[in-house]
Amino acid sequence: MRILFHAIGTKPGPWVDGLRAALPDADVDAWAPGAAPADYAVVWAPPQQLLDEQPRLQAIFNIGAGVDALLPLRMPAQTLLVRLDDAGMSVQMAEYVCQAVIRHVRELDVYERATREGQWSFRKPLAREDFPVGVMGLGVLGTRVAQALRQFEFPVRGWSRSPKQLDGVRCFAGDGELDAFLAACRVLVCLLPLTPQTDGILNRRTLGRLQRGGYLVNVARGGHLVEDDLLALLDEGQLAGATLDVLRQEPPPPEHPFWRHPKITLTPHTSARTDRDASIAQIAGKIRALRRGEPVAGVVDRARGY
Amino acid sequence: MRILFHAIGTKPGPWVDGLRAALPDADVDAWAPGAAPADYAVVWAPPQQLLDEQPRLQAIFNIGAGVDALLPLRMPAQTLLVRLDDAGMSVQMAEYVCQAVIRHVRELDVYERATREGQWSFRKPLAREDFPVGVMGLGVLGTRVAQALRQFEFPVRGWSRSPKQLDGVRCFAGDGELDAFLAACRVLVCLLPLTPQTDGILNRRTLGRLQRGGYLVNVARGGHLVEDDLLALLDEGQLAGATLDVLRQEPPPPEHPFWRHPKITLTPHTSARTDRDASIAQIAGKIRALRRGEPVAGVVDRARGY
Repeated sequence: MRILFHAIGTKPGPWVDGLRAALPDADVDAWAPGAAPADYAVVWAPPQQLLDEQPRLQAIFNIGAGVDALLPLRMPAQTLLVRLDDAGMSVQMAEYVCQAVIRHVRELDVYERATREGQWSFRKPLAREDFPVGVMGLGVLGTRVAQALRQFEFPVRGWSRSPKQLDGVRCFAGDGELDAFLAACRVLVCLLPLTPQTDGILNRRTLGRLQRGGYLVNVARGGHLVEDDLLALLDEGQLAGATLDVLRQEPPPPEHPFWRHPKITLTPHTSARTDRDASIAQIAGKIRALRRGEPVAGVVDRARGY
Repeated sequence: MRILFHAIGTKPGPWVDGLRAALPDADVDAWAPGAAPADYAVVWAPPQQLLDEQPRLQAIFNIGAGVDALLPLRMPAQTLLVRLDDAGMSVQMAEYVCQAVIRHVRELDVYERATREGQWSFRKPLAREDFPVGVMGLGVLGTRVAQALRQFEFPVRGWSRSPKQLDGVRCFAGDGELDAFLAACRVLVCLLPLTPQTDGILNRRTLGRLQRGGYLVNVARGGHLVEDDLLALLDEGQLAGATLDVLRQEPPPPEHPFWRHPKITLTPHTSARTDRDASIAQIAGKIRALRRGEPVAGVVDRARGY
């Protein structure tokens, strides 16, 4: 069995070594143009050339939760596309989203800025009951985030393509219930996969339906957000702020208004970093299962796009 | 039945109205010098004069979790001292502490400062396994905080005066196990009551036993911390930072070094604000129970000091 590794922006050495250690009977190499035919590929945002040169791949493992960079590529229909399935990411997402929501509702940024300026003053506390939080996307990550928010007693709503049931979460599903979901939220957390259907789903119309003084947390993909619409809604006061971990262009160009916008907190796509050891263990386990003819979790439905 | 209300820095009107609504058969008034004898007092940091003038109080209800401002006052031995018992505070503590710990371990302050300066750069993630968090004080608030931290998969240790058992938390107890507890922690969260035994408990000796590069979160009382010792340990690198919600003097004087210390995040005693409605409901329920001759939770053991 032969495995190729290629992830843009990532040094292949530790991944190749890790995969070799986890699968001692496999031939594992970093991909280079003209590489010998392989059975599996472990990738992040590979070039079309890799797929063109490797038509006999049985499965492509994406070392992230979102496969939007893979979907536009041409590849044989029988090649399985497999995404990471938690592998240490859901707890990171829960951490990131909870701190973003807590800091907004508790106004901790405001307090910390004030003490830096020598001010020790109190504000009337905001009530968490006034900040129902809606989670868009109820997969592994969205479910964990919703549960974590419940622990802090926020009213939590969820929205997903197909109907779901989550303890303590008011769930909505499908396009038909999107507006009702949005109207029931003041804080919106986006954890959707990026597909043609969800591209630009965070826009003037949808964000305008949130309860006034709303707050956006986007930890999914920059493509979900219409950036100019966010700026307009912040200016108008419909939204009070946003925490963004992803942008359409990463890094954004130097003149991009989000860098220093007073109502936007920006981080460099770091909300849930791939945990190499956990990912290697998971991918190795899935390769062993596939070789035994067993099904694996995280196989992408290409028609749905996730 | 007659009830007096007096809380320094708090307008009495809404409290008096709330207590009247909750206890329609009670005479409720804001205290003023010379007030007629009452059966109960609802207070925050009252003057000695109130207690001297009201020798027949059956119970004094403190509208906070810590009774350190009451303990030095002279009052009859039979007067019950009753503290708030959660009343909406534990969830706030869990919020505040979790965001402080998450932001430190995930280096979110560093990332947010960097994007403000137009930098989109990655740091090698810190591993939460390398940040065992110790909670000092395992009462209602400490227990809730420890449980909330467990949800984010931090290794959690607890220390209390008397032995406790908490699911998933390695518990230590008493002076004899304090050093072992400290050595097992890199992040230290103080939620102790302030008593003569715990005054200055966060000092060079104790904080120096934390794992190197440690982090302090003090959400209890400023009196727990020897402030100069914290500065020295931050300078030496033994501690990497601190989040402080309380100080010995609040507000601190303008020249106090904590206002602008680059390794200290300071908030104005806002980690768990008293929730007026929840507190009034709890105190009214306890007054009704006492009048029926039933025991109530939160009675302070004056010898222990909490």
